[in-house]
Amino acid sequence: MPKEFVDFSRAPGGHDLLNDIEPASARRLAHAALDSFSSVGYGGTTTRIISERAGLSSGALYVSFKSKEEILFLCTRVSHESALGVLRAAAETPGSVMNRLRKMMYDFTLWHARNHAIARVAQYELAGLTPEHHELIAELRRQIESVMRSQIQLGVDQGEFDIEDQAGLTLAALSLAIDVCRWYSDGGRLSAERLADSYSGLVTRMLSSSRDGAPREGADALR
Amino acid sequence: MPKEFVDFSRAPGGHDLLNDIEPASARRLAHAALDSFSSVGYGGTTTRIISERAGLSSGALYVSFKSKEEILFLCTRVSHESALGVLRAAAETPGSVMNRLRKMMYDFTLWHARNHAIARVAQYELAGLTPEHHELIAELRRQIESVMRSQIQLGVDQGEFDIEDQAGLTLAALSLAIDVCRWYSDGGRLSAERLADSYSGLVTRMLSSSRDGAPREGADALR
Repeated sequence: MPKEFVDFSRAPGGHDLLNDIEPASARRLAHAALDSFSSVGYGGTTTRIISERAGLSSGALYVSFKSKEEILFLCTRVSHESALGVLRAAAETPGSVMNRLRKMMYDFTLWHARNHAIARVAQYELAGLTPEHHELIAELRRQIESVMRSQIQLGVDQGEFDIEDQAGLTLAALSLAIDVCRWYSDGGRLSAERLADSYSGLVTRMLSSSRDGAPREGADALR
Repeated sequence: MPKEFVDFSRAPGGHDLLNDIEPASARRLAHAALDSFSSVGYGGTTTRIISERAGLSSGALYVSFKSKEEILFLCTRVSHESALGVLRAAAETPGSVMNRLRKMMYDFTLWHARNHAIARVAQYELAGLTPEHHELIAELRRQIESVMRSQIQLGVDQGEFDIEDQAGLTLAALSLAIDVCRWYSDGGRLSAERLADSYSGLVTRMLSSSRDGAPREGADALR
């Protein structure tokens, strides 16, 4: 490899989610592409920029990928699969549904803070995908929504929550966590953990019911 | 003007916020730039694309603007000023602080749905601004945060809310509304008004206090 190669495998914001890609040249291209997509956007990135940043000749990208779009799809798929995996794992949390949703919100928020660079590309560059790739990502997004919504529904069915607008709450909970990737930066005024704690507390407040006068678990979460 | 000129003055997503720009050529350039920024990103837009989409010769942009960045700054400034104006107007709502915050959240959410295209550019392309322009926008953003935060603080001071993490709640309320511009589309499954209603209800739930057993105004907002 030429000396200009920059190792992005430990770059912040989720480059490490691409560390399993083989062979090394494809991995380096994916890292370099993510770095460029997240700084100047998909539209501002050329295959030449990607190849050169990966320490390869300008045409080397086409040995591993058919197009720039194929790397965008790879980043977007890996990002969504990782976020879905974290949410699904948290949805296995034992105990009350409130406790489970608190954990889901905590982990999903934390994931978006830690993986803000790849998440930002995955969320903001969907328009760059081919229709076929877009549909595959849309299916992952439906699964993410379904995991969140089914737990909220379960809490309602079991009488733990008293909410009619379950769709609005599902949307808000996911949106709150996802928007973290827009503004979060490492070393900013809020740590990822503090933010996850704050947002999981807010979601429990949104879920808390006062209709039956029962204690609102989570009402103290912001104190 | 050449025949290829496309009139974006009534294009959805907030193009109309640029309708007061004079002279007409600058206005058309701003409309064309916004259309391109919001579809292929700032990085994917060239001054040639902007000029041609505005029905002008490729160098015509430089008669009105120093650079592509100057148009980005214009769009970003107009967008932030408009959003701030809406929030400030809602902050004049009489009655309880809860009632005022509900109106602020309703209007701020509605604004981001209706102006999703210009808001998206204003939120996602900040990295393209010069440091001087970035600082001017940062000041507008601090004002937006301050308007929201001072009302939450007022509610706490007056004993209306029982919240310690006022910073987290301010961030969450703004973030929830802003994230609407990421995914909202005209004709989607939720109308702008329905969404604004849902989110203003959720924020009142987040603000509602149970410590003193008082009725939680807004607890029914989702029903």
